Amino acid sequence: MVLHALQGADSATLTEITRVTGLSRPTVEGVVEGLIEAGLVVEAPVEEGAARRQGRPARRFRFRAEAGHLLGLEIGPHRVAAVLSDLDGKVLGAGQKEVDETASSDERLERLRTCVAELLRRAGIARGSLRAVGVGSPGIVEADGTVRLGTALPGWTGLPLGERLRRSFKCPVLVENDANAAAVAEHWKGVARDSDDVVFVLAGLSPGAGSLIGGRLHRGYGGAAGEIGALHLLGREVTPETLLSTTDEPLHPLDEQAVTEVFRHAREGDVGAKAAVERYTQRLVHDVAALVLALDPELVVIGGWAAGLDDVLEPLRRELTRFCLRPPRVELSMLGEAAVATGALRLALDHVEGELFAVEGTVTGR
Amino acid sequence: MVLHALQGADSATLTEITRVTGLSRPTVEGVVEGLIEAGLVVEAPVEEGAARRQGRPARRFRFRAEAGHLLGLEIGPHRVAAVLSDLDGKVLGAGQKEVDETASSDERLERLRTCVAELLRRAGIARGSLRAVGVGSPGIVEADGTVRLGTALPGWTGLPLGERLRRSFKCPVLVENDANAAAVAEHWKGVARDSDDVVFVLAGLSPGAGSLIGGRLHRGYGGAAGEIGALHLLGREVTPETLLSTTDEPLHPLDEQAVTEVFRHAREGDVGAKAAVERYTQRLVHDVAALVLALDPELVVIGGWAAGLDDVLEPLRRELTRFCLRPPRVELSMLGEAAVATGALRLALDHVEGELFAVEGTVTGR
Repeated sequence: MVLHALQGADSATLTEITRVTGLSRPTVEGVVEGLIEAGLVVEAPVEEGAARRQGRPARRFRFRAEAGHLLGLEIGPHRVAAVLSDLDGKVLGAGQKEVDETASSDERLERLRTCVAELLRRAGIARGSLRAVGVGSPGIVEADGTVRLGTALPGWTGLPLGERLRRSFKCPVLVENDANAAAVAEHWKGVARDSDDVVFVLAGLSPGAGSLIGGRLHRGYGGAAGEIGALHLLGREVTPETLLSTTDEPLHPLDEQAVTEVFRHAREGDVGAKAAVERYTQRLVHDVAALVLALDPELVVIGGWAAGLDDVLEPLRRELTRFCLRPPRVELSMLGEAAVATGALRLALDHVEGELFAVEGTVTGR
Repeated sequence: MVLHALQGADSATLTEITRVTGLSRPTVEGVVEGLIEAGLVVEAPVEEGAARRQGRPARRFRFRAEAGHLLGLEIGPHRVAAVLSDLDGKVLGAGQKEVDETASSDERLERLRTCVAELLRRAGIARGSLRAVGVGSPGIVEADGTVRLGTALPGWTGLPLGERLRRSFKCPVLVENDANAAAVAEHWKGVARDSDDVVFVLAGLSPGAGSLIGGRLHRGYGGAAGEIGALHLLGREVTPETLLSTTDEPLHPLDEQAVTEVFRHAREGDVGAKAAVERYTQRLVHDVAALVLALDPELVVIGGWAAGLDDVLEPLRRELTRFCLRPPRVELSMLGEAAVATGALRLALDHVEGELFAVEGTVTGR
């Protein structure tokens, strides 16, 4: 409670902490002393003005957000990315590197390590200062960070991703599905800040989704919630790669450059490309509709590369209004490319706050 | 805590309550006295044997489950049903009446009142003894019990169902979507007792679904979660009534007798009927798949009239296994026709327990 109170203010006196927490003065004094010893709290310098006005002012204390650091990582088909923050979640730096969609898991992880090393060096933060690392990646992820199923990246299915990354970091590593991480990010800093019931759709050739219910991530019983991309398999329907192709050959499943081309041609009036985009949008609407009917969210956030394609938003809103019993708001992702790493950072932050604010084995119900 | 302890045992001594609750003896004595005054606890008669063995035995107390009663009601297209219990949820009686699918809301509610009056009379329970009434009914239901949208029953959309029923009962009336109520019932007494992550599919001409996530009902932001029946509207696909028809004319949307006929003919080998059932099953598989991919439940329970049609279970399991990343178990409803009323009863019981066990405005986290 004392930490919470300090984290919520720039600095506070013992009297202020006593008032906010409802704890007794001796208790607050004892806890603050313990936190100072643990390096999490420090006495704040007295402001010049305050000193002059009031004679000897009360001592002020502040949370040492710089006492530890956190990383949020994204491992995607075409890039790896990292974002670094202090214990308050204040972002201190970010970096990213392109990676080939055909890269092996070893190459991809090596690329990520390089990206992280450069980021830490630039920010002047020692690796030992990291308290937790969050990771967002495609696929169904087990609680221990193993990828149970991940067809989007070569060598991803079965990869003990958490274990592999824990060798690079001496702190807890939390692995999460990328769409789940992005949903968390939009709720933290993006377009979903005011909504607790949110579906984030990571649109792409195989769309995935992450859901918040009552402000909490809904992972599903086996971590597979929101993997709506498989729905079309059922109806013996064609793949998204075929839907978006303007030739007889389907696009490569991960060739997002080709997708961008199709959308550009459609905007330029190419008839074949327009038809392809129309087919793709219909599929996306159907997938999103299935999520909306199942979950009834307040808000649907469209991210992934569709976030760059305003063309899908209007048909989505129109169709959802037409056939959903209670249509949700539909908005584009505010965080765009930063969503996955930002959400991973938030998950790392949640973990550390859970540890910091845990008292004798119980975690506060934040 | 004392009530919980007493409810969990046939009867208990003050010493036993003290041990189970961890409360002090004087506290337990005071609370038990208060509960006796409130009519919720009574001193239990001493067993003959115990008296002889131990000289003067310790006084025993028991929860008075008969201190109040609860009703669970179902209002469906073809029937109304009621189930009556004591405060322990022990069922004391049940009744049902057929009602025409074309009946007005007034007729339907009148039928329900007759059903309830007969049940109370048969069981010898005074209306004034009712502490709460739960109701399960098709449609999207607002928190106050108004049906926001309910196309299955004539005059249902906009009906202030909760308010109307509160005129008949002097206790709280809780209105819930029928599939949601059925999900709660299967979790309480049915096939989902051991699962906290459950999707209950109320199969019919327009399937609905209710979901439990972490053991709690997931209603959605606007109470519309699980209304998956609208999914086919999107693809300009034909209605279930058309799918199941063996002629050029669609079935009447509520004519379940006609549906039964089609399934019977299919089992007898009629080619047209077999094709119709195949079309219907494919649609059901698709709808269930959408729910499963969105929510990733541990267990899917199939109820409604499809529960009487074992034919759909095998294709459902096969197809879900084929294209769900983590296929759930699929089981038939155990409660069958009793599911909706039983779930409504459980919701009434939850409400009363919340009130009984509420201490100074806080409700225990059961």
